[in-house]
Amino acid sequence: MFYFNCDYMEGCHPEVLARLTETNLEQCIGYGEDDYCARAAEIIRDRFDCPGAAVHFLVGGTQTNTVVISSVLRPFEGVICAETGHINVHETGAIEATGHKVLAVPSEDGLIRPEQIDRVMKEQGDDEHIVRPGMVYISFPTEVGTLYTLSQLEDIYAACRRWGLYLFIDGARLGYGLTAEECDVTPADIARCSDAFYIGGTKVGALFGEAVVITHPDMMPRFRYMMKRAGGLLAKGRLLGVQFIALLENDLYFDIAEKAVQQAGKIRQKLLDKGIPLMVDSPTNQLFPIFTAEQMAALTADFGLAVWKTYDDGRTAARICTSWCTPDEQVDALMEAIERV
Amino acid sequence: MFYFNCDYMEGCHPEVLARLTETNLEQCIGYGEDDYCARAAEIIRDRFDCPGAAVHFLVGGTQTNTVVISSVLRPFEGVICAETGHINVHETGAIEATGHKVLAVPSEDGLIRPEQIDRVMKEQGDDEHIVRPGMVYISFPTEVGTLYTLSQLEDIYAACRRWGLYLFIDGARLGYGLTAEECDVTPADIARCSDAFYIGGTKVGALFGEAVVITHPDMMPRFRYMMKRAGGLLAKGRLLGVQFIALLENDLYFDIAEKAVQQAGKIRQKLLDKGIPLMVDSPTNQLFPIFTAEQMAALTADFGLAVWKTYDDGRTAARICTSWCTPDEQVDALMEAIERV
Amino acid sequence: MFYFNCDYMEGCHPEVLARLTETNLEQCIGYGEDDYCARAAEIIRDRFDCPGAAVHFLVGGTQTNTVVISSVLRPFEGVICAETGHINVHETGAIEATGHKVLAVPSEDGLIRPEQIDRVMKEQGDDEHIVRPGMVYISFPTEVGTLYTLSQLEDIYAACRRWGLYLFIDGARLGYGLTAEECDVTPADIARCSDAFYIGGTKVGALFGEAVVITHPDMMPRFRYMMKRAGGLLAKGRLLGVQFIALLENDLYFDIAEKAVQQAGKIRQKLLDKGIPLMVDSPTNQLFPIFTAEQMAALTADFGLAVWKTYDDGRTAARICTSWCTPDEQVDALMEAIERV
Amino acid sequence: MFYFNCDYMEGCHPEVLARLTETNLEQCIGYGEDDYCARAAEIIRDRFDCPGAAVHFLVGGTQTNTVVISSVLRPFEGVICAETGHINVHETGAIEATGHKVLAVPSEDGLIRPEQIDRVMKEQGDDEHIVRPGMVYISFPTEVGTLYTLSQLEDIYAACRRWGLYLFIDGARLGYGLTAEECDVTPADIARCSDAFYIGGTKVGALFGEAVVITHPDMMPRFRYMMKRAGGLLAKGRLLGVQFIALLENDLYFDIAEKAVQQAGKIRQKLLDKGIPLMVDSPTNQLFPIFTAEQMAALTADFGLAVWKTYDDGRTAARICTSWCTPDEQVDALMEAIERV
Repeated sequence: MFYFNCDYMEGCHPEVLARLTETNLEQCIGYGEDDYCARAAEIIRDRFDCPGAAVHFLVGGTQTNTVVISSVLRPFEGVICAETGHINVHETGAIEATGHKVLAVPSEDGLIRPEQIDRVMKEQGDDEHIVRPGMVYISFPTEVGTLYTLSQLEDIYAACRRWGLYLFIDGARLGYGLTAEECDVTPADIARCSDAFYIGGTKVGALFGEAVVITHPDMMPRFRYMMKRAGGLLAKGRLLGVQFIALLENDLYFDIAEKAVQQAGKIRQKLLDKGIPLMVDSPTNQLFPIFTAEQMAALTADFGLAVWKTYDDGRTAARICTSWCTPDEQVDALMEAIERV
Repeated sequence: MFYFNCDYMEGCHPEVLARLTETNLEQCIGYGEDDYCARAAEIIRDRFDCPGAAVHFLVGGTQTNTVVISSVLRPFEGVICAETGHINVHETGAIEATGHKVLAVPSEDGLIRPEQIDRVMKEQGDDEHIVRPGMVYISFPTEVGTLYTLSQLEDIYAACRRWGLYLFIDGARLGYGLTAEECDVTPADIARCSDAFYIGGTKVGALFGEAVVITHPDMMPRFRYMMKRAGGLLAKGRLLGVQFIALLENDLYFDIAEKAVQQAGKIRQKLLDKGIPLMVDSPTNQLFPIFTAEQMAALTADFGLAVWKTYDDGRTAARICTSWCTPDEQVDALMEAIERV
Repeated sequence: MFYFNCDYMEGCHPEVLARLTETNLEQCIGYGEDDYCARAAEIIRDRFDCPGAAVHFLVGGTQTNTVVISSVLRPFEGVICAETGHINVHETGAIEATGHKVLAVPSEDGLIRPEQIDRVMKEQGDDEHIVRPGMVYISFPTEVGTLYTLSQLEDIYAACRRWGLYLFIDGARLGYGLTAEECDVTPADIARCSDAFYIGGTKVGALFGEAVVITHPDMMPRFRYMMKRAGGLLAKGRLLGVQFIALLENDLYFDIAEKAVQQAGKIRQKLLDKGIPLMVDSPTNQLFPIFTAEQMAALTADFGLAVWKTYDDGRTAARICTSWCTPDEQVDALMEAIERV
Repeated sequence: MFYFNCDYMEGCHPEVLARLTETNLEQCIGYGEDDYCARAAEIIRDRFDCPGAAVHFLVGGTQTNTVVISSVLRPFEGVICAETGHINVHETGAIEATGHKVLAVPSEDGLIRPEQIDRVMKEQGDDEHIVRPGMVYISFPTEVGTLYTLSQLEDIYAACRRWGLYLFIDGARLGYGLTAEECDVTPADIARCSDAFYIGGTKVGALFGEAVVITHPDMMPRFRYMMKRAGGLLAKGRLLGVQFIALLENDLYFDIAEKAVQQAGKIRQKLLDKGIPLMVDSPTNQLFPIFTAEQMAALTADFGLAVWKTYDDGRTAARICTSWCTPDEQVDALMEAIERV
């Protein structure tokens, strides 16, 4: 039995573990003020071409989203996102827990459009009876694996600037987005076209960890207070620094992500060849085929798949995820199984 | 110039003012523990046929909604409401300020259906990554003036019980709903088919004030702590008791509401006669005609109307409100003006 | 039986009621954007000599404190106050409800000293593990009736500026402080030596209402959003404007406050003459005599007194309040009763 | 240079790392629902003799305190703790961020007494203007290394039961307390005399991680929702399960803690022999000697020590921590250095 349910079922890339083992008994100052975190931050600023950025390390995505969003919004401000956005549907109200409304806009494909931002802002009209949007949150890739083109990303960012909104990019699966064949966005574009973003480690080779990169000066002051207040200042912060050095020093992060995306690409082609419809077509490491009950039963006898959505006619949109450590033989086996259904 | 913009442009009914004047220099214990509040509560329990209910008095609607909703939800629970619900669109995130997500469901006419509750509950599936619905919030009448039939209300309440959800009715305009000709719901039905509701005073004859009626025992303990923490325990609580006695002792509340609804009914008939479309057809004191730019210009030369929504083709959905003190001559004047446009 | 328990047992000064009655049926725009509120704000800016100030009107003190404090602090910032401060002890955690810690410093007499501010700031040392003070809250007069001298107030404000802290003055009983014989602080000093303060109406002649005056530009933008989110934007805001006009237009506020303070002064002299100890000596409208159990029993047979504190030896620190409407004969009667005990 | 500043400067015990390495590439279900977490919970229930307890795993202490405390308090309830309590002074207002007031009581030695609980409860007197205590938080050992005797602990718990308060024990350094020579409290006593507690891993041999043990049924339902909402549901929850198995399966946790405490004991004896005063005398792994400026300068040339408190006369209360991995030779070297100063 092999699980394609999600991209965080294993521990970490062996190289990451090797670094943690090597440095295990060194004494380091706590809370992310050690040399490893400093070095990891330097590598990130360099790799994403944002020399003036502030870089902080947190353990998980929900915490990261919460801390970034609440660090800079005024109490009556909300955050615009796609209705499919992780903060809107899968974080148990963590944003609302900080007092901010999530302002969801319709989205079939996980993307939002500049016109939607314009509409929300016009409807709000600076009326004090209505939550004031203060930030836009997008995911790259989105929760359903889709990507903004560079031009779309630039347009979103332009809309944000026009309206005085911060733009924050959730990069829980950033590696799987940036290495997709269709992707015309570079790491430097991510930094250039946003006010803050995070580089997801948990799903791309780390044991855990997300690196927040802040480029807008408004969001920098006393960010560490926000982290601590949210229980997000890891005592042994060096664990995060060491992992991100291992992942980013020699582009391991991108190499393993690319491999995962290529494997998903093979499975996608097989699905298309078989005429299996896709809930949404994703160029990254997540696929959302719609299976009949029979197909689902046949496949889940041998493979773990996640149930994303069920239809009244008995069909299921499943999620198939590859990850940095999906073995070739499992991809082949799944493709054969799809061929057979 | 006469304003039909909303139903809170004047002070209070003269009878209310007379009572406030009469009792002005009496010394009363503070914070709603006085005899007037006790008497008003008694009248309410009697009039709404809910002898075991707890009754509390607050100053305004947003505060009332916030206190009731946050009094009983656990931190990770949210409140289901129509997307048009006041708490979703016109309270500047006051519910989210208490840490709870508003779970908006689609609604054209301001009403929600039991099937929508079922769907939200099934989708949540007691998954800890998703906000758990803990309450349903409906407005009676709704924000666009519509009403639940008794049968609809009973079905909503049955769905709530089935899923273990509290049902809370926002009665900011309760009088204007209960006295509508089409209404088959009685005050006793409101109490019987909900776990908590409030009787809106601000819009129906009081200077200010809302009476919260709690029938579910879970919501009763230490409710006053919740009020105080939210800044909602009025020092001179007797002001609220005195007003509600004046309004409810002899059904003044219902008499003046009924008059307002009848006047709105006359205007509605005139709009229909003239073939002016309605954004939504309301049997209560609020009307939402869709006017052309010319009609709007003509009418607003002599009358205040609220702009509810603007359409791309230049038309406007206006809101026309009558209230407990709308004079006959103004209704007549408006009807003539509508006739002329 | 006459009650000296507190200063909010009656309704409002007859002049205030007269104005409310006069204007009752006028139609006014809602939420404090009417002409009465504008005029009241103008009078306040003039009387307190702060031409550039923003003025807003709220219903009660807890709400006012909450809105002001949370309008400008960052999430990890707290507010320094005396341990006796209203926000620390008698608001059911309303400040903490907005996520901010109240940083209480020791105080016997209700006052805080600049050295205490210095000490808190040094101990915090801009360490992100410790709540960062962002504001100082003082009450004028304090909760136990004491007053800052002008020099003390200036020193507190200087300390605030030195450390980058906002200074907010709770003026729930401002009138009773400014009209005390010992007081060398003027209305203009209050505005000059703070970043925000409020003029308490509830306890000084109004039915209800507090006027917030903001002089620091940081606290001005979108303050009304904060009010609305906290349920503090009164629908019929004109009620607040009308009352403050009545109270401040011809200094009625100060005249009635002064009378109350003089009456408290007579009672205080009688207590001192009888050798009754005071928990704290107050020059304003509140007195805190320490009575034996026998004295307490004798007095409370005929007068309402509040129990402030009980001692292990059976004695009680009572609170005696005079107010804008305490009649001379009741003051005389209480003095005679004290003479007799 | 060797650092005695704190007990979280190294990674984890080699046995823990070995287990993480062994299991690294296994596929496990996420969010703590894996077999390792189940097994670790079983071991904990067994070792602490609490068969009906719910066990959950979180990453860090601040998060753990926040989630536990906010899971069960009503919004207007606060938590009583010593003024030295971690939640009161070193968590940047994380508890207040959830809307709850920390009700600090005086403490010189980090302990609180049942009489203090009684006093707070009597003063509150179920008055809705005052935050209602809902829980007592104690640390075992305390932040300054002291311990409750079994009798003291039982008395605290009896006081909590008398007043209807939950008792929560912060066990960030639980191992260092339970293995102290003076300690007469057993693991089973900790479970028996509290409603919830946590076993700190971060400071006692784990990379990170705290195991929450809940024995009171009120605190169990949907605790995982609380964890997720606070960003505390680790995606790869198995990392926590694996570590706690390694630590507790064969009592490694207690063995390494005991060694650290013995080493601190040797240093303590040396300090006493040299006549160096202690700010507070601790029988666990933390020591708080008061050094002169000269002593401090001499020692910190070769050793890292934490500055806990500075005195006006130039002296410093330093913190010396041993940990599960403090080498003997460093203890000897420090003792020699102390001998020399």
